[in-house]
Amino acid sequence: MLKVSKIKWSEAEDTIAKQALQKAYTRETSALIANIRDRAASITELSDLWYLHDLLSTKRYEIDGKYTYDSSAIVFDFAKLIKQGWLSLEDLKGLSPEILSKISALARM
Amino acid sequence: MLKVSKIKWSEAEDTIAKQALQKAYTRETSALIANIRDRAASITELSDLWYLHDLLSTKRYEIDGKYTYDSSAIVFDFAKLIKQGWLSLEDLKGLSPEILSKISALARM
Repeated sequence: MLKVSKIKWSEAEDTIAKQALQKAYTRETSALIANIRDRAASITELSDLWYLHDLLSTKRYEIDGKYTYDSSAIVFDFAKLIKQGWLSLEDLKGLSPEILSKISALARM
Repeated sequence: MLKVSKIKWSEAEDTIAKQALQKAYTRETSALIANIRDRAASITELSDLWYLHDLLSTKRYEIDGKYTYDSSAIVFDFAKLIKQGWLSLEDLKGLSPEILSKISALARM
């Protein structure tokens, strides 16, 4: 298991991390809203409606968990968001090179 | 508590009851699909999306329970469907006058 040492943020890094998380959150939730609106518009069967419900259940659970700011897990959280396309390394500019390289390595796994 | 005696259906009555249940189901689920499509089309905020999710959770639970054909509870089920506007006494034409009057009385409660 990869060990990530406890992160010591400067105040500036803390701000960058929180802004990046907010940016990813806005991107993912906007995309989700657009996706649900599109899907809903073409629903004609009850089974499609329950599929939409299942999708919303999953997404809500995922999103609730993914965007809680937790500095002890942020390296993993950012790596996941990069892998999923909601964040780029560019959005994290200003974090220490050590942290960025960890995030980058994790995102490639 | 109102006591409803165990119902003895003729084969014809059984068919009428099942068809009426199916009719109410189609009406309610079609209305729900239209309602969800309308609501989804105007969603712009995540909170609206989670509201839609809550609504779907409730409706799915309700609908799953309401349309299970159970002849021992059908008088109550029909009364509820009439009260909610998914069925009319007209849809139950052919059931015995005794049953119809029970359903009608319950629906007015």
